[in-house]
Amino acid sequence: MSDDPWRPMRVFEDPEPGAVGASVWPRRVAILGVGLLGGSVALAHRRARPGVEIVGMTRSAETARRATEGGVIDRAFDEVDSACSGCDVVVVATPVDRIAEIAIAAARASPPECLVTDVGSTKRGIVEAVSGDETADAKFVAAHPIAGGEKGGVEHASATLFNDRLVVITPSGLRDGEADASLAGSPVARAIAFWELTGARTIVMSASAHDAHLAATSHVPHLASAAVARLVTAESTPLVGTGWLDTTRIAAGDPELWAAIVRENRSAILDQLRRFRDDVGELAARIESEDDVALAEWLWEAKRVRDEAGGQS
Amino acid sequence: MSDDPWRPMRVFEDPEPGAVGASVWPRRVAILGVGLLGGSVALAHRRARPGVEIVGMTRSAETARRATEGGVIDRAFDEVDSACSGCDVVVVATPVDRIAEIAIAAARASPPECLVTDVGSTKRGIVEAVSGDETADAKFVAAHPIAGGEKGGVEHASATLFNDRLVVITPSGLRDGEADASLAGSPVARAIAFWELTGARTIVMSASAHDAHLAATSHVPHLASAAVARLVTAESTPLVGTGWLDTTRIAAGDPELWAAIVRENRSAILDQLRRFRDDVGELAARIESEDDVALAEWLWEAKRVRDEAGGQS
Repeated sequence: MSDDPWRPMRVFEDPEPGAVGASVWPRRVAILGVGLLGGSVALAHRRARPGVEIVGMTRSAETARRATEGGVIDRAFDEVDSACSGCDVVVVATPVDRIAEIAIAAARASPPECLVTDVGSTKRGIVEAVSGDETADAKFVAAHPIAGGEKGGVEHASATLFNDRLVVITPSGLRDGEADASLAGSPVARAIAFWELTGARTIVMSASAHDAHLAATSHVPHLASAAVARLVTAESTPLVGTGWLDTTRIAAGDPELWAAIVRENRSAILDQLRRFRDDVGELAARIESEDDVALAEWLWEAKRVRDEAGGQS
Repeated sequence: MSDDPWRPMRVFEDPEPGAVGASVWPRRVAILGVGLLGGSVALAHRRARPGVEIVGMTRSAETARRATEGGVIDRAFDEVDSACSGCDVVVVATPVDRIAEIAIAAARASPPECLVTDVGSTKRGIVEAVSGDETADAKFVAAHPIAGGEKGGVEHASATLFNDRLVVITPSGLRDGEADASLAGSPVARAIAFWELTGARTIVMSASAHDAHLAATSHVPHLASAAVARLVTAESTPLVGTGWLDTTRIAAGDPELWAAIVRENRSAILDQLRRFRDDVGELAARIESEDDVALAEWLWEAKRVRDEAGGQS
């Protein structure tokens, strides 16, 4: 192994994608929760390394059938222990409010060197809960791939879902402003290697910094999109255009999944939601006072942020 | 002419698109303001009737060159009077806060039977201003094609922009709840025929009903999209995902154009913006009180509206 924590894995020394042998890691991956994200992790790893063995855990016989017949996973299990046996990596891809308990169970059921990671959209609650269990804390490296779609289910999984997307890795014990502190630890380095094999880029930060940023970039935008959808009545429905359709696209997402995200990141979401409401109030004040210069400034700042962050997409 | 006000035009009796002769209407169309919308009206009419003559009015020599070289218009003028001479239809496609004065000038400069229509996103102020001029009131039928894109300019104009889109027609003198009252009048029937030639569907309502609906379906969604863009800071920019990108896409639109729309529809926009802010406040209260059943209900209602209005798009 190299001393450089960013390039420690033998996986990088193997120039043959899909070669099978002692130098290839991971050889066996378990996906716990085979939906859009879990299924896409499986397909992305198959693309990177056709020889990898991927097993899935799902309680739904229908999902198990679809995932195996579709070639997403090689075998399906209906409980954590048997799915995790003999695995190099376990990916917990259930709804956010189930991740901590399943990660702890996976850490207990998997081999000593196994990496346990996840795909949850919130991180602080999960990292805190898992770090309270000594076995799990040693194996678990939390991750959030910033990718997805409003259509869930393994039937929408894609090998390219993570291409050039960012995966935020939030190791336990990392405090705000300490981004590199624990990188020399092998599980974090393996998590980086694992996620980069999906085609994604990675960034390391504390779980609380992640949750504060994502409240602003994802969680409150989702809630705002839902509020925009709620403006439309049955009478005005025929008059919606592409602007409303774009702005409300994510409001078609699963409400129970989003309610779980709110539960897991309540305080950061409340902070950003109030900031949002106050900014809308400020805008209303500028409109009411007919201060059209101030209104244009408010709109120009929004355009500047959108153009800078969004490029042309 | 038929007695049926919905089918009075000889245009419908002509089975040969592009045939040139006494039965073809319109033969000459003027587009005042040759941008995305004006250019798309021109291209859509060319597609429907290749023989139509289309002239444009623009103050920009560069736009005139692009529009004529690109085949969007046959000839460019730099003033209203010469552009409107000999026309069957004049389409005012300038920013909303210039439409009324230009429509009045076009009515004075065009032949007696000429139809004057527009593409403005707000209607009440325009209809009120134009109806104060007797000549213009007799010729003008306001219209709002619900179509567009965040990229303006004649270079983005498209013959298919209005395909299956809705054009809202708001005749003067039509009060709320009187949708059919003035349809027997020839200018309204001609406006319907003109807009349906672009590939659009049409609906007739009062200008004030239009403005109230559009505040909810378009104007406040635009402002909310801008507020979502403004949540993101330089530090959190790398963490935006497809959800934020979808929700803020329209915030990249021209701030001056949107400031003009706000000026033209200030009171209806303020009503809907306050409704929006109050709904966000109600959501924050549900999140703060940890009433997760009430939170899920709020999200389900948003999904129901989005699914119903948006289909799969």
